[in-house]
Amino acid sequence: MSIISLLSDFGHKDPYVAEMKAVILSIAPQARIVDITHEIEKFNIRMGAYVLASAAPYFPPNTIHVAVVDPGVGTKRRSIIAETRRSLYVGPDNGLLMLAAHKEHITNVYQIDNPKYMLSKVSKTFHGRDIFAPAAAHLAQGNKPSDFGPAIQDYILPEFAKPHARNGELLGEVLHIDDFGNIISNITLEDLEKMEFHEGTSFLVRLGGKTLNIRFCSAYGEVPAGTPLALIGSSNFLEVADNQGNASRIFKAKVGDTFHVSVAVSS
Amino acid sequence: MSIISLLSDFGHKDPYVAEMKAVILSIAPQARIVDITHEIEKFNIRMGAYVLASAAPYFPPNTIHVAVVDPGVGTKRRSIIAETRRSLYVGPDNGLLMLAAHKEHITNVYQIDNPKYMLSKVSKTFHGRDIFAPAAAHLAQGNKPSDFGPAIQDYILPEFAKPHARNGELLGEVLHIDDFGNIISNITLEDLEKMEFHEGTSFLVRLGGKTLNIRFCSAYGEVPAGTPLALIGSSNFLEVADNQGNASRIFKAKVGDTFHVSVAVSS
Amino acid sequence: MSIISLLSDFGHKDPYVAEMKAVILSIAPQARIVDITHEIEKFNIRMGAYVLASAAPYFPPNTIHVAVVDPGVGTKRRSIIAETRRSLYVGPDNGLLMLAAHKEHITNVYQIDNPKYMLSKVSKTFHGRDIFAPAAAHLAQGNKPSDFGPAIQDYILPEFAKPHARNGELLGEVLHIDDFGNIISNITLEDLEKMEFHEGTSFLVRLGGKTLNIRFCSAYGEVPAGTPLALIGSSNFLEVADNQGNASRIFKAKVGDTFHVSVAVSS
Repeated sequence: MSIISLLSDFGHKDPYVAEMKAVILSIAPQARIVDITHEIEKFNIRMGAYVLASAAPYFPPNTIHVAVVDPGVGTKRRSIIAETRRSLYVGPDNGLLMLAAHKEHITNVYQIDNPKYMLSKVSKTFHGRDIFAPAAAHLAQGNKPSDFGPAIQDYILPEFAKPHARNGELLGEVLHIDDFGNIISNITLEDLEKMEFHEGTSFLVRLGGKTLNIRFCSAYGEVPAGTPLALIGSSNFLEVADNQGNASRIFKAKVGDTFHVSVAVSS
Repeated sequence: MSIISLLSDFGHKDPYVAEMKAVILSIAPQARIVDITHEIEKFNIRMGAYVLASAAPYFPPNTIHVAVVDPGVGTKRRSIIAETRRSLYVGPDNGLLMLAAHKEHITNVYQIDNPKYMLSKVSKTFHGRDIFAPAAAHLAQGNKPSDFGPAIQDYILPEFAKPHARNGELLGEVLHIDDFGNIISNITLEDLEKMEFHEGTSFLVRLGGKTLNIRFCSAYGEVPAGTPLALIGSSNFLEVADNQGNASRIFKAKVGDTFHVSVAVSS
Repeated sequence: MSIISLLSDFGHKDPYVAEMKAVILSIAPQARIVDITHEIEKFNIRMGAYVLASAAPYFPPNTIHVAVVDPGVGTKRRSIIAETRRSLYVGPDNGLLMLAAHKEHITNVYQIDNPKYMLSKVSKTFHGRDIFAPAAAHLAQGNKPSDFGPAIQDYILPEFAKPHARNGELLGEVLHIDDFGNIISNITLEDLEKMEFHEGTSFLVRLGGKTLNIRFCSAYGEVPAGTPLALIGSSNFLEVADNQGNASRIFKAKVGDTFHVSVAVSS
């Protein structure tokens, strides 16, 4: 029994997600379908890549992940299956799949061009339903990735900025702002350890035109309600939160903004 | 193993959808439940009918579709099961089920009045949980539609406007505005072919008090980002979109508005 | 095959809910997962408790309910399993589980402290994924609640106000405002029956600074569209609704507000 995960920017009010599930169950009636999210910001490939890469490690091996954030649908962008040591990824060749796939070591990437594994009529506007969902279902039924088309080497690998140090500051960027308003950066504990700091240190965080001196904690509840704090979040990145509040309202940051951190000098 | 689909205007923050699923699983533990959507605009039967009719054809034969957009709950409106050549539809007798059912050829419609297949206490406010969910679950367990009550002939068939031509214009109406802001009309390719046009033609689209000259394309990506376009969408209806943007913000259209199209004269 | 229900304030745009499901399926591949809701207002334990207690009675016996509205995550608040005569509840020891559990007669409450049943690395920010989801999955696999840690007596039982009468008025409070704008109180039919009233009576409802004379009905459709009404809703509490409209826009009430009802004197 295969697990198929779904991620998209389709939202919940339209028939699109259900059409994908219906197509999957028509081909692979035993598949377990798990939604990751359908509320990726429209056309925001970076946010989709981040959320997929956060969730994928918790799924069992051999999960088939289908992701659709696809501004280029119907143009010449290719449809692909990326095979890693742990999972299969199905979606558009626009970088969306590759942050997650890369973490698991990519073994092969195949173009999907065999019409035998597509719906009989392929629209130019909805490859999620007409190409990706049937591909995932046929993989769940035992087809090999190489059945779908030729291996390719020139798939798109997005540049994801690495944090770097400058003048005693660490510069990263905002990867995601979650539904609690927590601002998640691409800075890891390993990055932070290059600066001199310790548990209980305060950080100067500069973000969205604002600079605040905030405490580095290990749980939201370590500061009083309504107080900003910094911590390593559940995806292992540095985030800025506001205990029982909403940090994104304090900093007015958005995805892609530069995230500056330095150790605050105690007075 | 039966598939039961669910569609409603209940939203996601209340216990209502979960109560329906819990009732279904209590009666039919093996049923596969697939949400179509629970974000139909409150009480908008037309939008519910459209989304149900869009998604239903992709489900396997013998799917049991439960739909609840039900402003008349607790009044004399009847509860029904519509049987088609392909599927079963369970819900209120207010037209909601009939756009989808009609496309599959309706064979019989039964009133649900046998209390044996309802929850022991039927509220006057939530027939989704107390009547429709148990009916679907009992159908999944092998009961026949005729077990639930008498066949009826006078069920409600909603009038859905057909596009018509006038003074060189085609007049349809807005069926749905999707989460991407795409404005979906009830005009099909066959309707358009009555006008003289060809691939690459521009259309004059008049909608929401605004008239724009827009290109007829086959994929969103055929025009630059931020440019409006017309195309036949994934549900086979003419829609107006804005590549990577939101057409409904340009036209300020709403469901039910008249949608005028004519061929633009090249200058 | 066990059913595991999930309730949280995580929303749908982040990977958090999917991570919990992925963890569950990694441990208990056969579990049936049913979402109650993930749109509890952030940190609103009362609303979470109400929605959980509304939905739980419709689930089959032996369902495992996991609920996460958890402002104290990472502090000293304990993780618990509450065992009732009918179900199991897994979540934080902050009162969230207890309205539902109490209705089913609590037999034992256990602290979860056995690391064998947690993820190998437990974050201080996401016990839903690292402690509660694995606990539920291990319960589904046949572990006993007592395997997870010691029985405790001093778990938190929240005070939920009971309605009381004063000067001919009944005073309750707003438990929940649903997605239709229906304002749900904690007043039951039994409470109302202490006042002299009968079917067709009008009530004076005072709420959010406004007093209205509204009819007591048994279905929304008994008054014309756009007319407020009072009724006993599907969760058996007195609610104020507006037929095909939105009562919360009329009364501007919020959760926790005092809800005054008295019988209107006919003129």
